[in-house]
Amino acid sequence: MKPTIPKTVAHRLPLYLRRLESLDADGVETVSSHDLARSLGLKDAQVRKDLAYFGTFGRPGVGYPVRELIPKLRAILGTDRTWRLALVGFGNLGHALVSYRGFRRKAFKIEAVFDADLAKIGHRAGDLVVQDIADLVTQVRRLQIPLAILALPAEAAQAAADELVRAGVVGILNFAPVTLDVPAGVAVINVDLTVCLEELAFHVRMARAPASG
Amino acid sequence: MKPTIPKTVAHRLPLYLRRLESLDADGVETVSSHDLARSLGLKDAQVRKDLAYFGTFGRPGVGYPVRELIPKLRAILGTDRTWRLALVGFGNLGHALVSYRGFRRKAFKIEAVFDADLAKIGHRAGDLVVQDIADLVTQVRRLQIPLAILALPAEAAQAAADELVRAGVVGILNFAPVTLDVPAGVAVINVDLTVCLEELAFHVRMARAPASG
Repeated sequence: MKPTIPKTVAHRLPLYLRRLESLDADGVETVSSHDLARSLGLKDAQVRKDLAYFGTFGRPGVGYPVRELIPKLRAILGTDRTWRLALVGFGNLGHALVSYRGFRRKAFKIEAVFDADLAKIGHRAGDLVVQDIADLVTQVRRLQIPLAILALPAEAAQAAADELVRAGVVGILNFAPVTLDVPAGVAVINVDLTVCLEELAFHVRMARAPASG
Repeated sequence: MKPTIPKTVAHRLPLYLRRLESLDADGVETVSSHDLARSLGLKDAQVRKDLAYFGTFGRPGVGYPVRELIPKLRAILGTDRTWRLALVGFGNLGHALVSYRGFRRKAFKIEAVFDADLAKIGHRAGDLVVQDIADLVTQVRRLQIPLAILALPAEAAQAAADELVRAGVVGILNFAPVTLDVPAGVAVINVDLTVCLEELAFHVRMARAPASG
């Protein structure tokens, strides 16, 4: 495997996997880079280049074998194992995440839930019980949980991120609309709903005034 | 303005805006393409190329004037006006979205909330009242709402998307883990939490085994 995969490629790999799983569910056996590209709004060459980072998958003139490519992509992404998660913040978003049925193939499993609100601590969160955020470092360290979802208000996010890093967490999915400051070696993926809506507004604007200005 | 902006550029513009707003809040007046690139994990040339799609903003050797660039990016994204939204689905995620404080600068405003659950219809959703999803087409058309957030389970998402399109909605932010089938001219941005977690897992894997294989 090559040492460095560009961030933009990392962003597209799960989209390829999602599309391939959907094709597989529909009984499709082979997909061309053209069809894969079109369904994701990419260029054919981009798809071929991205997948070539990881080896030779496709057969020229035939396409990619859907069912063979899926486990290879899962292995590349590291989702052929189960990743255990800590959820920090049990507000509305936290509730939604605990009951989220989209975590496919059990690759991701929430194993601990934390909140600072005394009214929530001790209450059920799915199969778990909400723990005091004051115990986060001890508990996450004890359970050796590698990833966390941060679903706190902006003002509480950095302090919680610091605790997670202290506890040994190496990856954070951050829903708070702030840029987290973490040491090198800790990965952060931001899900900022405003950013998503801005991207949507931009697409709508472009579609409506394609040649203006 | 040039007619076609690549999808990958559209994805980065809100990130530039977010970073610039953060710099402005810290009193920073000028930012180089290098600093902007580094803070977002991009290459300098990428930033310069992206922003050049929209005109000449920067001054060589000086950088981009933060406070001037912000309104220009907002105008490009179309977030210098308020976009009205319909929220479809008032489960846990819907609750989180209604109370989400991250919708910056009032560029986005939820103006109608729909659900199919009789136990929810008629109940308060922030300043609004949850309406019957059966009235979606009539109400969205009457209010001329251009954008929608789809926060329904996967199995209900496509039917609701069809209704939204019938009601004249031109952009959908989709949280359901399905690929929506919509006519050309309707923009869809997918927020798939599994995809986000897969991307995170991949980054963690790469950081831990940078030269393996």
